[in-house]
Amino acid sequence: MSVSVESVAAMAGVSVSTVSRALRDVPGVSVATRKRVRDAARELGYAASPAASRLATGRTYTVGIVVPVLAKWFFGRVIGEAAQTLREAGFDVLLFELATLAQRERFFFGAHLHGRTDGVIIMALQPTQDELESLASQGQAVALLGAEAQGIGSVSVDDVGAGRAAARHLLNLGHERIAFIGIRDDQGSNLGGVPPLQRLMGYREALSAAGLRKDCTLEQFDENSVAGGAVAMSRLLVAEQVPTAVFVASDEMAFGVLKVLRKAGLDVPRDFSVVGFDNHELCDVVDLTTMDHKVAEQGQNAARILLDILKGLPPAVLVLPARLVVRETTAPPRALRSSASTPDSPQSAGHSGTP
Amino acid sequence: MSVSVESVAAMAGVSVSTVSRALRDVPGVSVATRKRVRDAARELGYAASPAASRLATGRTYTVGIVVPVLAKWFFGRVIGEAAQTLREAGFDVLLFELATLAQRERFFFGAHLHGRTDGVIIMALQPTQDELESLASQGQAVALLGAEAQGIGSVSVDDVGAGRAAARHLLNLGHERIAFIGIRDDQGSNLGGVPPLQRLMGYREALSAAGLRKDCTLEQFDENSVAGGAVAMSRLLVAEQVPTAVFVASDEMAFGVLKVLRKAGLDVPRDFSVVGFDNHELCDVVDLTTMDHKVAEQGQNAARILLDILKGLPPAVLVLPARLVVRETTAPPRALRSSASTPDSPQSAGHSGTP
Repeated sequence: MSVSVESVAAMAGVSVSTVSRALRDVPGVSVATRKRVRDAARELGYAASPAASRLATGRTYTVGIVVPVLAKWFFGRVIGEAAQTLREAGFDVLLFELATLAQRERFFFGAHLHGRTDGVIIMALQPTQDELESLASQGQAVALLGAEAQGIGSVSVDDVGAGRAAARHLLNLGHERIAFIGIRDDQGSNLGGVPPLQRLMGYREALSAAGLRKDCTLEQFDENSVAGGAVAMSRLLVAEQVPTAVFVASDEMAFGVLKVLRKAGLDVPRDFSVVGFDNHELCDVVDLTTMDHKVAEQGQNAARILLDILKGLPPAVLVLPARLVVRETTAPPRALRSSASTPDSPQSAGHSGTP
Repeated sequence: MSVSVESVAAMAGVSVSTVSRALRDVPGVSVATRKRVRDAARELGYAASPAASRLATGRTYTVGIVVPVLAKWFFGRVIGEAAQTLREAGFDVLLFELATLAQRERFFFGAHLHGRTDGVIIMALQPTQDELESLASQGQAVALLGAEAQGIGSVSVDDVGAGRAAARHLLNLGHERIAFIGIRDDQGSNLGGVPPLQRLMGYREALSAAGLRKDCTLEQFDENSVAGGAVAMSRLLVAEQVPTAVFVASDEMAFGVLKVLRKAGLDVPRDFSVVGFDNHELCDVVDLTTMDHKVAEQGQNAARILLDILKGLPPAVLVLPARLVVRETTAPPRALRSSASTPDSPQSAGHSGTP
């Protein structure tokens, strides 16, 4: 461990920085040089250490990825994509799950990032100005995913536009009683971060633009899970006037909605239409119509934006559009389709009882 | 940054090691001591650095978690559980995805772990003796998840027993033509790591014990995804004698199997029974009968085993049993159930054509 990076550089006839890059497999070093450096390192018994890398480059070649929760499909997917982009650029990933306020406080103000990471990607959390300043004071470059902040690089989705589009799809099919099921986060707030709130705003805009009055009983919130979606849908089923369609702010919740509807004997989409949000890989299994917000691209772009900042480029702000993916859970409401065969049935009568 | 940990220790009247533990929120330091240390650190303008922690404790308080792929439900779930257990013990998580052989080589032989991590948890990869020796030479404690090795701590599931149980459930229902759909890994091997291979062995054992002859056309392999399961099931549908049931070595593949069966007009479980493997959180949505291998417990236990090794305890080897979770995708084969109404219909005739 006492062999210095300088002696490897001298033996291989290259710079200290090239030794560091060659031993870390960072792109931009030729195969021949890489081999020469490796041979020299092996001959001298030199093991690359993070301290040596820092010495040579001032970099830790490590990026922190910060999420509110790890065990969710969305986060597994974006972390996987971001980590791959970072790895291809020669960076490792340090993972932080901020599941509680105490963890969040410790992460931002614990002052432990200096010398451990070059920058952090913060996913689905809106950092405060104090939190961003604390990261800056620790020498961290910052990129956000699913949030925006003044002067900070970020990638997010036009969630207002996506919510509007989901609701408009249902309006265009002829639905008038359209419910919304949203995410309530662990702190008991109904927002679950900025994007789910924006989806609600888009839904409200579309209904309002269609001349429909706001009906709070049609907006239900629960935890972002299959069980949460099932509970929220069950609440809609006991409404005085049951809706004929629902826009659900997460596919996992929509899966719970489909389950409850099936158990209640309601056919989707004959009796009830459902639009989800995510384009979860299992949508295809249950044929869920959903909003695709390009999860893989979000992860890749967050990593690229951070890497660009580390190269000295100005922080980019990227807003991706979402798109509707029509599968088999949306159709015109029964009252419109079956008017020929049952002309006198009121629109919502079919839902008042469950078998 | 020039304030030393020793001066903080002197001001707070505690040892250097206590300063390190207090600033890292490691359990075992009283609230009063923690406050005294924090006050001293703030007053002196001291920021805890990994170098200082190393100095005080010889530890990086970081554990590497190594997976073959990040963006899979199983890995998101086990990483999340392991990370939480590690965090509660004051450890951070450095994430390594070894998606290619080059990445695997670099991870094990790149000699970059020393001073970065105290130990690593290797998930769903069988390390070679050389790889384990390289980790030891870098001062790493090692725990395995889903694999075993001589003298190494590990948590795994009795996958042979689980495969046997899944097949026996189908045999006990009266099925005789029982197919197996397994995981083919990216290297083109049909094994996909040790556990999926063991599930196949258990399936073969159960069929053999029931006096059924081995039929290679009943064993299909594809990638571990919804699409892979769909492709494998499609191959079974063109067999000369279509099976009446299938045991699928992963729930995600089983979801693809259910999709293909539905598209082919076959009713599950009336025409065809399906048993999955994982107890994926979405099993409940599609009512999939499956083998629960306690994913959360695997993650927690892998972390605990590694933490114990870091405390100097001998490496524990834990084998968890899996259990059958019966939902609604398994039933006796049609030939047995409908013998009263259609006594002359041969067992497999119902499957030879699809609508």
